Amino acid sequence: MSLVRSHAVLRQSRSLVAVSRVRPLPALRFASTEAASLDAAAPKKSRFKNAVTIANRTFWVALLAGIGSFAYVTQKDRHPGPQLPHDPSKKNIVVLGSGWGATAFLNALDTSEYNVTVVSPRNYFLFTPLLPSVAVGTLSTRSILQPTRYVTRHKNRAVKVIEAEAQSVDVASKTVSFIGKSAVSERSSQLISRLDNSDIQGSVSSTTIPYDYLVYAVGAETQTFGIPGVKEHACFMKELNDAEKFQRRFLDCLESAAFPGQSEEEIDRLLHMVVVGGGPTGVELSGELHDFLEEDLKSWYPELAGRIRITLVEALPSVLPMFSKRLIDYTMSTFKESKIDIMTQTMVKEIKERSVTLAMPDKTVAEMPCGMVVWAAGNRNRKITQDLMAQLPADQTNKRGIAIDEHMQMKGSGGSIFAIGDCTASSHAPTAQVASQQGAYLARAFAQRAKRDALEEQAQASTTAEDTKKALGKVKIRPFAYSHQGTLAYIGSDKAIADLPLLNGSLAAGGVLTYYFWRSAYLSTLFSLRNRTLVATDWVRTKVFGRDVSREW
Amino acid sequence: MSLVRSHAVLRQSRSLVAVSRVRPLPALRFASTEAASLDAAAPKKSRFKNAVTIANRTFWVALLAGIGSFAYVTQKDRHPGPQLPHDPSKKNIVVLGSGWGATAFLNALDTSEYNVTVVSPRNYFLFTPLLPSVAVGTLSTRSILQPTRYVTRHKNRAVKVIEAEAQSVDVASKTVSFIGKSAVSERSSQLISRLDNSDIQGSVSSTTIPYDYLVYAVGAETQTFGIPGVKEHACFMKELNDAEKFQRRFLDCLESAAFPGQSEEEIDRLLHMVVVGGGPTGVELSGELHDFLEEDLKSWYPELAGRIRITLVEALPSVLPMFSKRLIDYTMSTFKESKIDIMTQTMVKEIKERSVTLAMPDKTVAEMPCGMVVWAAGNRNRKITQDLMAQLPADQTNKRGIAIDEHMQMKGSGGSIFAIGDCTASSHAPTAQVASQQGAYLARAFAQRAKRDALEEQAQASTTAEDTKKALGKVKIRPFAYSHQGTLAYIGSDKAIADLPLLNGSLAAGGVLTYYFWRSAYLSTLFSLRNRTLVATDWVRTKVFGRDVSREW
Repeated sequence: MSLVRSHAVLRQSRSLVAVSRVRPLPALRFASTEAASLDAAAPKKSRFKNAVTIANRTFWVALLAGIGSFAYVTQKDRHPGPQLPHDPSKKNIVVLGSGWGATAFLNALDTSEYNVTVVSPRNYFLFTPLLPSVAVGTLSTRSILQPTRYVTRHKNRAVKVIEAEAQSVDVASKTVSFIGKSAVSERSSQLISRLDNSDIQGSVSSTTIPYDYLVYAVGAETQTFGIPGVKEHACFMKELNDAEKFQRRFLDCLESAAFPGQSEEEIDRLLHMVVVGGGPTGVELSGELHDFLEEDLKSWYPELAGRIRITLVEALPSVLPMFSKRLIDYTMSTFKESKIDIMTQTMVKEIKERSVTLAMPDKTVAEMPCGMVVWAAGNRNRKITQDLMAQLPADQTNKRGIAIDEHMQMKGSGGSIFAIGDCTASSHAPTAQVASQQGAYLARAFAQRAKRDALEEQAQASTTAEDTKKALGKVKIRPFAYSHQGTLAYIGSDKAIADLPLLNGSLAAGGVLTYYFWRSAYLSTLFSLRNRTLVATDWVRTKVFGRDVSREW
Repeated sequence: MSLVRSHAVLRQSRSLVAVSRVRPLPALRFASTEAASLDAAAPKKSRFKNAVTIANRTFWVALLAGIGSFAYVTQKDRHPGPQLPHDPSKKNIVVLGSGWGATAFLNALDTSEYNVTVVSPRNYFLFTPLLPSVAVGTLSTRSILQPTRYVTRHKNRAVKVIEAEAQSVDVASKTVSFIGKSAVSERSSQLISRLDNSDIQGSVSSTTIPYDYLVYAVGAETQTFGIPGVKEHACFMKELNDAEKFQRRFLDCLESAAFPGQSEEEIDRLLHMVVVGGGPTGVELSGELHDFLEEDLKSWYPELAGRIRITLVEALPSVLPMFSKRLIDYTMSTFKESKIDIMTQTMVKEIKERSVTLAMPDKTVAEMPCGMVVWAAGNRNRKITQDLMAQLPADQTNKRGIAIDEHMQMKGSGGSIFAIGDCTASSHAPTAQVASQQGAYLARAFAQRAKRDALEEQAQASTTAEDTKKALGKVKIRPFAYSHQGTLAYIGSDKAIADLPLLNGSLAAGGVLTYYFWRSAYLSTLFSLRNRTLVATDWVRTKVFGRDVSREW
């Protein structure tokens, strides 16, 4: 206490010497020598203390400022303000889809100039790269989804969101027909798995609406290549209910293997997981599964964990063909250490209830007993896309998908239909990154288009046509230019690989540091503060408590 | 800087007066007067600063200590050590169930003296009072469940956990027969809703095991009173998949109401939710639903939120009969403010796809259009319990449930079967609190029994019979004594009611403070640090980000 008071006193007046408890010294010379020598020793300690104090105060200020702004942003997000109503004088855009392309489009679109309607059987956006993490329980389902309305309710003008599956697009009459998702449940639709039993229907559940512009972003469906047994016995990995089905089946296998009296052979079969498809999805799922095994299952199923086997089957000569050879080799060796078997140049011939039939590299056929199969092997066009393309046979000749020009316009549609994402057949790979950039581009293009339309109207009406024509000349709708940001994949065991473009070359990296980069890249790509926080806290939760081993469904 | 150095110098030597930058004063008297007057002013400021410093340091020490112990506990929980194997010389206890009674029993049981096997179709414990919160999205599903293995893997001796549904108990031969959950899916079983498609089966999926002691804790199933349409059209609120079904249907109703072209009448019907059952479950669900409406749906479905109606139907003259009249009135008035209609003395006659038929208090019959019905109206015995009771017709005459004595023994079973929880018909209410205390009691009784058996063996073998007999006399297995801790219920709008026993009377409380008490009481009742943390962080997450409005399934 006394020192503090002394401190205060010294502060008050520089000229004070004596302080209540300090006895005065007779010889100043002694004092100054001692002071000088202590002075030399003191600086280090006091600099450190000073630094600690400053750090402490900075911490508190930063924390309070951070909390304050976080609270402000989140509360503002939750309470969107009023919106302009639909304006009959504006053009109508109908957006089909709620994936990467459609959501990037909606995020960037300026709705002052357009009335927008979104039609999708799924009323939320799903951050697909993190789906394998959800399948294994590292993340919660809610953390990687964002309801579409969270975006649309913040736009200038009210956007209609309709949860329905589009049935057909009529190019001639410029209309879209769709039915409420509830009414779809009985039909077999790739998007609606048999888990869907949305059995609530209003009396009106199907309708047709017109559009001025159609933004077609329905994506693709999982490709089965017509191989028997895939739909009946395999798990896909494209939608949330695929991840849930995977988790349920996986834990089913475990519990069935733990059933008393189960034979050794049967246990080995039940604990053999086969993942088909050596692309990023298949590789990440295998890696996540391995982590689940090592970090959690060993604690809760000690008698079984050591017997679980993972096999990754790929038809091409190597996995992850989009990565450089060095990274492919790194992945193969990591998987080998993790005891994940990789079978390249192996094709699936048939999937049965308890086994999978493979065509081996040496052309022989082998039947491999397994507990479950995950099918992560590629996409194909939806039926509605094929029907749409069939209406413009002259221009739409690429079976892979919709042919578009460099402004995202569907060739032959006369400028009223725009297509982005996986449903298109362009020179770009069918990835989330491409769809996302296309969506954002298209929104900017629409803004330019609106500006140009307004100027054209003005030019027709106005007398000062010269200025307007000049302004018109300045409004260019540039073509789309894709800017590759890099490719990432998580390969399990806290390691990731990254192929990043650098000036004239690329940087290939793999390992634990790359894993943290992978995490930060995904965090920044997540569309909202809410998702970032949920995913980050999920990662912490998993680190602290581990993954769940209960089967909820 | 200079002041810090001065401080250090002063500290070093109490006798120092002059410090390098401080000019010596000629008159000490002046100094001491000034010092004295400043001394009077300084104490307040420096006391405050002192307090801040101390608070700051305490905060950091507490934080680090807290983090340290939290990390220690959670990591220890995740990595259980080795366990003793099953010992053929010990008695075998088979536990049927994984609810409140069974889990409390497992938690408290000392497995040194027994081999334990747990059989339940559900391989996790569910904290049922918070199920309405999960149904509405306030909490995540994982936060209120705890895998059974998280408990059993920490016991002294390895406990077998079998995920299977018991089919029958044979009292005479002391065996239990069960089939793996996967194999059950085709049969209609109350616990397995149609969402369950556990279609993975091992080749062995049914078996019979013997027991020395059976702890029968299978609980009860939802009572439909034979009313037509309940099973087909209503949602229950007993298991996790009930909560998920509720959420899916509710959001279905919203999206169907938002479908373009829906008639006004149809919108009103779709947005009318009927909850049947005025007990704590029905009341809490109505309250949570109201919160969801006010705090979230108004933001995302502004055109619909104002039209949602909630009706609570109860056959008795009042809701929440276990609470005091004052609290019942408080609930009724809170619900009235929240615009939740309560219809007492009203019985459900039939539930159809789009309406519910009610017998009103004046005996007339009315058909009320509604979007969905939640059935939270009571329990009845499972079939397996009825079959078990039928084997001891002389003693088991109470249709409500198994008759037990004050030591939880099933009357007529000869001391080999013990029953706890909702499946019993005792003087206690069928609540979680009762089952939980019964389970803990039973574990202690088993410990006493083991001690007594050991002493009896010793007495037979030993020559010093006197001492052993004395010790035997001391080992008493006391009868069960229920200690009522109080009744709580959340009624929405951040308010709860509580009836707590106090000495000779009871304390009835209702309001926002009670709500915080409700939260803390539930947090402390949750069985593990993991669940407490998950629920607490979920509450924070909901506070910050709101509830989700997407339909996952």
